[in-house]
Amino acid sequence: MSDSVTMAAKAESTLAIVCGGGSLPFAVADAAVRQGRRVVLFALRGFADPQRVTAYPHHWARMGEFNRFMSIATEEGCRDVVFVGSVTRPSWWQLRFDLRLLRLIPDIVRLFRGGDDRLLSGMAGLLEQQGFHVLGPQEIAPELVMPDGPIGTRVPNDRDRADIARGLALLAANSPFDIGQAVVVADNQVLAVEGPEGTDQAVARVAELRRSGRIRTPSGIGVLVKAPKIGQDHRLDLPSIGPQTIEGAAAAQLAGIAVVTGSTIVAEPERLAAAADKAGLFVIGVTDGTRR
Amino acid sequence: MSDSVTMAAKAESTLAIVCGGGSLPFAVADAAVRQGRRVVLFALRGFADPQRVTAYPHHWARMGEFNRFMSIATEEGCRDVVFVGSVTRPSWWQLRFDLRLLRLIPDIVRLFRGGDDRLLSGMAGLLEQQGFHVLGPQEIAPELVMPDGPIGTRVPNDRDRADIARGLALLAANSPFDIGQAVVVADNQVLAVEGPEGTDQAVARVAELRRSGRIRTPSGIGVLVKAPKIGQDHRLDLPSIGPQTIEGAAAAQLAGIAVVTGSTIVAEPERLAAAADKAGLFVIGVTDGTRR
Repeated sequence: MSDSVTMAAKAESTLAIVCGGGSLPFAVADAAVRQGRRVVLFALRGFADPQRVTAYPHHWARMGEFNRFMSIATEEGCRDVVFVGSVTRPSWWQLRFDLRLLRLIPDIVRLFRGGDDRLLSGMAGLLEQQGFHVLGPQEIAPELVMPDGPIGTRVPNDRDRADIARGLALLAANSPFDIGQAVVVADNQVLAVEGPEGTDQAVARVAELRRSGRIRTPSGIGVLVKAPKIGQDHRLDLPSIGPQTIEGAAAAQLAGIAVVTGSTIVAEPERLAAAADKAGLFVIGVTDGTRR
Repeated sequence: MSDSVTMAAKAESTLAIVCGGGSLPFAVADAAVRQGRRVVLFALRGFADPQRVTAYPHHWARMGEFNRFMSIATEEGCRDVVFVGSVTRPSWWQLRFDLRLLRLIPDIVRLFRGGDDRLLSGMAGLLEQQGFHVLGPQEIAPELVMPDGPIGTRVPNDRDRADIARGLALLAANSPFDIGQAVVVADNQVLAVEGPEGTDQAVARVAELRRSGRIRTPSGIGVLVKAPKIGQDHRLDLPSIGPQTIEGAAAAQLAGIAVVTGSTIVAEPERLAAAADKAGLFVIGVTDGTRR
């Protein structure tokens, strides 16, 4: 299929962007608009930035409002849906129980057991059963995908490269357990494994461990390594990095950040490179031989 | 070898107890004394409880004072050494560089790369090279080893047992990376993986994640699972639990604690059982089929 045909096909339907926290949903929306596509944001209450959504056609929604989503999305002429931005795992009592959702409860109960990955892929599966087409942000906005090699001017040294390899191996070992997508490794020692707290908190823990003297690896050593889980549905919850990731890594006195090329989203690549240079950190896209 | 012969052999030499933080060193010292053995504590400055060491023959020492340790231990007639209690990974500049240590520097540099396990087994190896015999606390005080089955009256239900199995599998997968010895799993979701912060901090994180709403698993669900690393030298840094572990698990609203039978140390078993019952938690010793 040629690019022009792809563009025409994409232009057919309005894109529904289910919009969580952070700046990534807007970067994806802007990319779609640049391609001449109409977008509608379904801004998740409590997560989406209320200021920034006003710049786009949008509806506010709560997690679990399937019926409302489906009727509005149909009215708006959406067939394609993209989930983007950060969300907290919802609790039962936060979900709005509309009628259609009630019929889906047996499926949803299953989704609630286990990690984020299962929850998200299950939600996507439910939407697809209803006739929607779930896309990944990287399909809408390939320009936001992390390229191979360094962004910015710094590059990892041999010790950093060994830490990156160890981090990728650990993430691969943890992958079947549906934990987080990030670890911090410094001079071969694992300093943090991300859990439900998210990457920023895991990196903040390293800063705190340094302050309290619990770890003694000298400043400027250590790498934040991020990778999607193996076998993860690449349309959903791909790892992402932004300027706040750089700030956190700098506060934790790391040498840099390594993410898997082609499957990490970078909301604002130019700002990220500038921030990395200013902080004296490397940010590099690496390929992981154990994947794909 | 019969028990009486073992006892006689043990009685031959004074036991050197290299004494870190917590109450475990004193429980081991008391057990040795009950066996009629003389003990000398080498209290690590900054870690050992300064009040409690006064009840035993003791010398204060800093990490890395090999020469001092070896001359005093020899004077005191010690051949057997046990390392017990919590310590922070030392930094270069905290080590006292005595002459003998300087000669060992090439070995020590290697120890400093990698995790705690390697550091400890390397330190033990250096002592053994110098003619000492390094024992595990469980060899001195078998009565402090976690037995099979529950301590206290509560027992895990089926969901808890599934969480325990998942926790043990995750710890086994992480074992080659020399990370921590504990994870928290709740209804199949991994809530925390212990890093250098230690078990108490990892469990405190779960409490914090609950408070902040970042995790939504209902109160009373979740298990703290502890296991030694596979292939770990069982003389060194075995997992241990005490009343503060119960307090932490209760604050994190877990259902209970599971540790590997035979390779976890319990400083005060009766206090622990009473604390568990009071907190409404189970504490159970489990066998892990993937080990041994």
